[in-house]
Amino acid sequence: MLITLTGYDPVGAWTKSAADTKEIASWKNPSGNTWISVEGLDNPDEINKLAEFFNIHPLTVEDILDITQRPKVEEFNHYLFITLKDVDFSEELGLEQISIIITKDTVLSFQNKPNDHFDGIKKRIMNNAGRLRQAGADFLAYAIMDSIIDEYFTIIDSFGSQIEVFEDRALDEKDNSFIQDLQELKRKLLKMRRVVWPMRESLSLLIHLDSEHLSDKLNPFLKDLYDHIIRAAETVETYRELIAGIMEINLSAASNRLNKVMKVLTIISTIFIPLTFIAGVYGMNFSNMPELDQPLAYFIVLGVMAIIALGMILFFKRRKWI
Amino acid sequence: MLITLTGYDPVGAWTKSAADTKEIASWKNPSGNTWISVEGLDNPDEINKLAEFFNIHPLTVEDILDITQRPKVEEFNHYLFITLKDVDFSEELGLEQISIIITKDTVLSFQNKPNDHFDGIKKRIMNNAGRLRQAGADFLAYAIMDSIIDEYFTIIDSFGSQIEVFEDRALDEKDNSFIQDLQELKRKLLKMRRVVWPMRESLSLLIHLDSEHLSDKLNPFLKDLYDHIIRAAETVETYRELIAGIMEINLSAASNRLNKVMKVLTIISTIFIPLTFIAGVYGMNFSNMPELDQPLAYFIVLGVMAIIALGMILFFKRRKWI
Amino acid sequence: MLITLTGYDPVGAWTKSAADTKEIASWKNPSGNTWISVEGLDNPDEINKLAEFFNIHPLTVEDILDITQRPKVEEFNHYLFITLKDVDFSEELGLEQISIIITKDTVLSFQNKPNDHFDGIKKRIMNNAGRLRQAGADFLAYAIMDSIIDEYFTIIDSFGSQIEVFEDRALDEKDNSFIQDLQELKRKLLKMRRVVWPMRESLSLLIHLDSEHLSDKLNPFLKDLYDHIIRAAETVETYRELIAGIMEINLSAASNRLNKVMKVLTIISTIFIPLTFIAGVYGMNFSNMPELDQPLAYFIVLGVMAIIALGMILFFKRRKWI
Amino acid sequence: MLITLTGYDPVGAWTKSAADTKEIASWKNPSGNTWISVEGLDNPDEINKLAEFFNIHPLTVEDILDITQRPKVEEFNHYLFITLKDVDFSEELGLEQISIIITKDTVLSFQNKPNDHFDGIKKRIMNNAGRLRQAGADFLAYAIMDSIIDEYFTIIDSFGSQIEVFEDRALDEKDNSFIQDLQELKRKLLKMRRVVWPMRESLSLLIHLDSEHLSDKLNPFLKDLYDHIIRAAETVETYRELIAGIMEINLSAASNRLNKVMKVLTIISTIFIPLTFIAGVYGMNFSNMPELDQPLAYFIVLGVMAIIALGMILFFKRRKWI
Amino acid sequence: MLITLTGYDPVGAWTKSAADTKEIASWKNPSGNTWISVEGLDNPDEINKLAEFFNIHPLTVEDILDITQRPKVEEFNHYLFITLKDVDFSEELGLEQISIIITKDTVLSFQNKPNDHFDGIKKRIMNNAGRLRQAGADFLAYAIMDSIIDEYFTIIDSFGSQIEVFEDRALDEKDNSFIQDLQELKRKLLKMRRVVWPMRESLSLLIHLDSEHLSDKLNPFLKDLYDHIIRAAETVETYRELIAGIMEINLSAASNRLNKVMKVLTIISTIFIPLTFIAGVYGMNFSNMPELDQPLAYFIVLGVMAIIALGMILFFKRRKWI
Repeated sequence: MLITLTGYDPVGAWTKSAADTKEIASWKNPSGNTWISVEGLDNPDEINKLAEFFNIHPLTVEDILDITQRPKVEEFNHYLFITLKDVDFSEELGLEQISIIITKDTVLSFQNKPNDHFDGIKKRIMNNAGRLRQAGADFLAYAIMDSIIDEYFTIIDSFGSQIEVFEDRALDEKDNSFIQDLQELKRKLLKMRRVVWPMRESLSLLIHLDSEHLSDKLNPFLKDLYDHIIRAAETVETYRELIAGIMEINLSAASNRLNKVMKVLTIISTIFIPLTFIAGVYGMNFSNMPELDQPLAYFIVLGVMAIIALGMILFFKRRKWI
Repeated sequence: MLITLTGYDPVGAWTKSAADTKEIASWKNPSGNTWISVEGLDNPDEINKLAEFFNIHPLTVEDILDITQRPKVEEFNHYLFITLKDVDFSEELGLEQISIIITKDTVLSFQNKPNDHFDGIKKRIMNNAGRLRQAGADFLAYAIMDSIIDEYFTIIDSFGSQIEVFEDRALDEKDNSFIQDLQELKRKLLKMRRVVWPMRESLSLLIHLDSEHLSDKLNPFLKDLYDHIIRAAETVETYRELIAGIMEINLSAASNRLNKVMKVLTIISTIFIPLTFIAGVYGMNFSNMPELDQPLAYFIVLGVMAIIALGMILFFKRRKWI
Repeated sequence: MLITLTGYDPVGAWTKSAADTKEIASWKNPSGNTWISVEGLDNPDEINKLAEFFNIHPLTVEDILDITQRPKVEEFNHYLFITLKDVDFSEELGLEQISIIITKDTVLSFQNKPNDHFDGIKKRIMNNAGRLRQAGADFLAYAIMDSIIDEYFTIIDSFGSQIEVFEDRALDEKDNSFIQDLQELKRKLLKMRRVVWPMRESLSLLIHLDSEHLSDKLNPFLKDLYDHIIRAAETVETYRELIAGIMEINLSAASNRLNKVMKVLTIISTIFIPLTFIAGVYGMNFSNMPELDQPLAYFIVLGVMAIIALGMILFFKRRKWI
Repeated sequence: MLITLTGYDPVGAWTKSAADTKEIASWKNPSGNTWISVEGLDNPDEINKLAEFFNIHPLTVEDILDITQRPKVEEFNHYLFITLKDVDFSEELGLEQISIIITKDTVLSFQNKPNDHFDGIKKRIMNNAGRLRQAGADFLAYAIMDSIIDEYFTIIDSFGSQIEVFEDRALDEKDNSFIQDLQELKRKLLKMRRVVWPMRESLSLLIHLDSEHLSDKLNPFLKDLYDHIIRAAETVETYRELIAGIMEINLSAASNRLNKVMKVLTIISTIFIPLTFIAGVYGMNFSNMPELDQPLAYFIVLGVMAIIALGMILFFKRRKWI
Repeated sequence: MLITLTGYDPVGAWTKSAADTKEIASWKNPSGNTWISVEGLDNPDEINKLAEFFNIHPLTVEDILDITQRPKVEEFNHYLFITLKDVDFSEELGLEQISIIITKDTVLSFQNKPNDHFDGIKKRIMNNAGRLRQAGADFLAYAIMDSIIDEYFTIIDSFGSQIEVFEDRALDEKDNSFIQDLQELKRKLLKMRRVVWPMRESLSLLIHLDSEHLSDKLNPFLKDLYDHIIRAAETVETYRELIAGIMEINLSAASNRLNKVMKVLTIISTIFIPLTFIAGVYGMNFSNMPELDQPLAYFIVLGVMAIIALGMILFFKRRKWI
């Protein structure tokens, strides 16, 4: 468990770390805002102490500790609680739950595993880049959500390139694993969808929530975020339709290949089976087979065979099989 | 029919059993809350007496006795009526209807068959664990619903592991029973869905119901429950899509297998049928077949056969069949 | 055309029949409610006279006479008009339109063909069973609707058992008529759906309608009816999904069967076609075929043939075809 | 361009034609209502003059002249504008746009090509049949819409009979054109749907529009129309599902036929290919083949062949292929 | 970066170009409206100066510069911001983002690449055609949106003709590329849909927005635009269904072709394989085969073969295979 404290006001900024909540009373930034970032949730006692200090509802603490929560927004008297999913660009599409509590002058963020997704925000605060230092705690919360949702687009774009690769392979790929890989991608897409869709509702709620913890100035920024998440949601839906289309191309190509294989088999069989029969007839050993003794019979039979073969080929030509 | 009475207040708790409603007048807990848990619904007379004592509407009694009810919430003057489904983790996904009546200081719960799903709540009351003893009757009803919905997740998780097993088998399974088992799972999922979806509406109604039987303090807990049920509903939907995907993988694998079988058949037939025809020709017994007497004819014919076979193999190679 | 009059009040009840509206002025029950049940709609004049007497809007009369109406509820100044479908449990799922007009103290019901679906209600009135005699005209209308909707469940349950039969046959049935029968059931289900769905809206409207023709006491009963119809609608939807699943099982089983047939064909052909070719070669009649005169050649060839056959079998074993 | 004027009041009615708008000032019917029916829209100047006289908004004129408009209702200060599609019962499902303008005492209707769909209304006005002469201009507009929507049902019924024919052919039809014809019907159905659905919204809007151009008395009639259009829309949806079902029957029947063809091929091949191989072995010309000289060998071989054939037949019987 | 200034009032109009914002203070048209059209967004500094001058929110500037925005409408205190997609009728369906800012007397439009889509509007202003010169800045913005949405119909119509071509080829096309091209068209349709659908919401918002920047007179025009976009959206949906239908025709035709190929193979094989077997039997070299020496045996065997062949043909006739 690592607690990172970042205090800032328009004039200056400082940052320090703590491993527990012993000195919590000294954490507040009297003249400005504080960001208390907690990484590691395996120490519920410390989280509870933190919650007690900030007067957090026990259910919120439960939601923070249960990392399978659905993204949501909840307003309490003293604070606003937002939980959402940070997506990790890994093989398995790892999800990290980020919980954010917004009070008047403090933002608390909670996550289980440390990562570097919010380093950019910390740098911007320390270097006074952008408007973070000038704005309130709600703007910091917005900045965190914004950096998370930006990550979504990286993931979704990578889905897009994977889909293009699948599209290129769809016609020629005969291996079973193709469909399985495609289904795997679809499963990731479904997972992503369950990350993105609830965010839609959450952001729509945040925009229309008349909360004292969100200043009016933040509204255009939240609307912007909302537009991004809608775009992400729509892209995910489009990708699902594209995957269904790739599946159709692949199945249709397989069926076409089968058709061609069957045609070759049919053409060869249909031409030679009757000819082989004729040869078989004149290979019989009956003592009285008058044709056998005709001097030209052999050549006549060969001619008849050639005519039959040509007739078959013409028949196939007319049916446009060859 | 077994009636279990549990009385409690912040100071103490007691529990006793009854087989009928004769002493019903003495059941009320003057200083606290009472939980009257009825197991076994095959004695409508006793249920009616109970209902009369608590001034329950005849339609509510009908709903309690008809165990095929759809989950719902209904507000009456004197009480709040909630009916929902307890799910049994058995082969056949057994459903047990739980009906809950919330009055000012009493919770009545009705179920047909006894089970141990609510033993944990009883223990928590007796041992004064959690906040049950401190809270009102509405919180007890919440605890009952919470324990039921927790059970849903056990079931849904078991569906999840079954789906994973199906996914692993999807490519190689050729047996008809695979699809049938998958459809069976889908049917259970549909059943589960009909349990979960109406709960969504019920909980949404409970949250927005401005009832005197639900204290404001309960609202965050109901919202929490609502989030859980939404998550359950979304998982069920995702599983349906995964099942459809497994079906597609299985069908596509079957079609690929057919393709491969046909290719082997076609390659063998196409190579040997013409060669057999040639052998047949020189097996004919015509008296005048000049080739037969050429000393090298046999070897020339064998060579021609080899060339034809090689040609065929090259043709298949070019078509990427082998 | 048969008009059945049933008058009742908490004290007593009488019933009589009429074939026309001549004595209509004497039909009203001064102290209680009257149920005027009209069976047979082929005499518009009489219906019009009835409508005139009760001050019914011409459009309502049109709706009563046009028996292809969609179920609906309409409120007029003097009365409430409800039209719904009675379902007949026959081969063809016959629909009978029931129109109900509720005035302050009179219920008029109209249907085209006589049937015995409402005999139970008549008996309950005559025998003073249930609360019909004590309640107002609106409760009678509710009882009629209730008995119709109960009938829906009989039909839907019969669909359920048919679906189970189809499920059992799905794997083994190879006949085309299977799919056709299944589609026939689906068509009936669609028909049933068009009966049930509009009832949802109608009942929701009735519940929220603040009409003077519906007493407040009726509301829980209407809500109960609404729950029933929702359950019916959900069951119909589930059945549609089950039918789609049965179709999938059947198609997949057919495809598996084809796969197995093809495998048998391929195995037999692939083993014997090369062997037959070899036999054909040594059946040729060339004068110079040195192998033919080797004393052990025949047995060597038989051995080679056995080795080829075994090789093929091993190949198939490795591919898990046999 | 043909302008037909029909003036009427409860006392009398007259009709006359005009080819242009020169005498427009004299068209108004001082004591009653006037219906100005314009057929032919290729003379925008005259339409503009008409619009100017009645104070019509330029956008309404544009909508009248653009005959690809989507059905809609728009309220302006001086009038109500309705545009909808008249359907022609022809091979190609021709659509004719009808635009209706309702003012206090005048109805203007516009259409591009003349047809006889509204002759019935004209007759009813002239003969004082029905309530047209007694009612206001809004009722005339209703009558026009009613006659158009009645036409929809003719079309939809014809779709219904076509679907029945397709259903009867679904099992046996092997021709590609079957699917193509079915898709053609589906396309017409989609076209019809785009005619019917917007009418739903339009009529719903008309019912809830509190316009001075629609008297309260018209409301039941509009509701009736709304019920009709809902019924039409639902029928169209049901037909789409039926068409999907027919497709499934046809595909499944084709797949069953293929299965049967393959079985015949497999049975014949599997029985005779091994027998032919045996015959081939004993047709080889090796000098040392001891069996050939056994006097009973031929009959033993024939017997072995018969046993193999019987074994195969038993194998197929056990697999239920024959 | 090219800035085109167009000033106009009912009396006159002028136009001039600028490459930067140095003289921005002189751009306003004191007595009328000004259209500032910016082409080329690669110079954010200049855009920022422009934004500063017109008091534009930084987020709006971000939206203008990020050309992957989703179409939307946003109202700010000083202006109304609209962003939408111009569609390019090219192979790849290029999208150009057009951002429009409406203030009291100025319209600013931004786009990245120059094109001639708005030349018509400029001409109409200069030549005083239509009502542009008489109307306010909002009407100019409407005219720009109108010309963009008109372009949508050109694209959608071209999709329509492509679909017709696909429909004609659906039955006979055997090439894999057919399905791939169809999927490509579907992908373009999905892209178009993501352009059209958000416009629906935007226009609906504009109609119901009670903004001071939109005069009441504009409302009918916006409603008209809304109807157009609804029509476009519905056409796109219909096209998606048609594409699914074409896919079905193509697959069904392929399956029918396979059926026919298999039948030919089966008929030929089934007739000749048994005959070949018989010929093989009498080609065996057993020393004791009594039939061989019967003088008529050969002709009897030929007769038997003919009878078997005829029997087979009759069998196929009865099964309606030939």
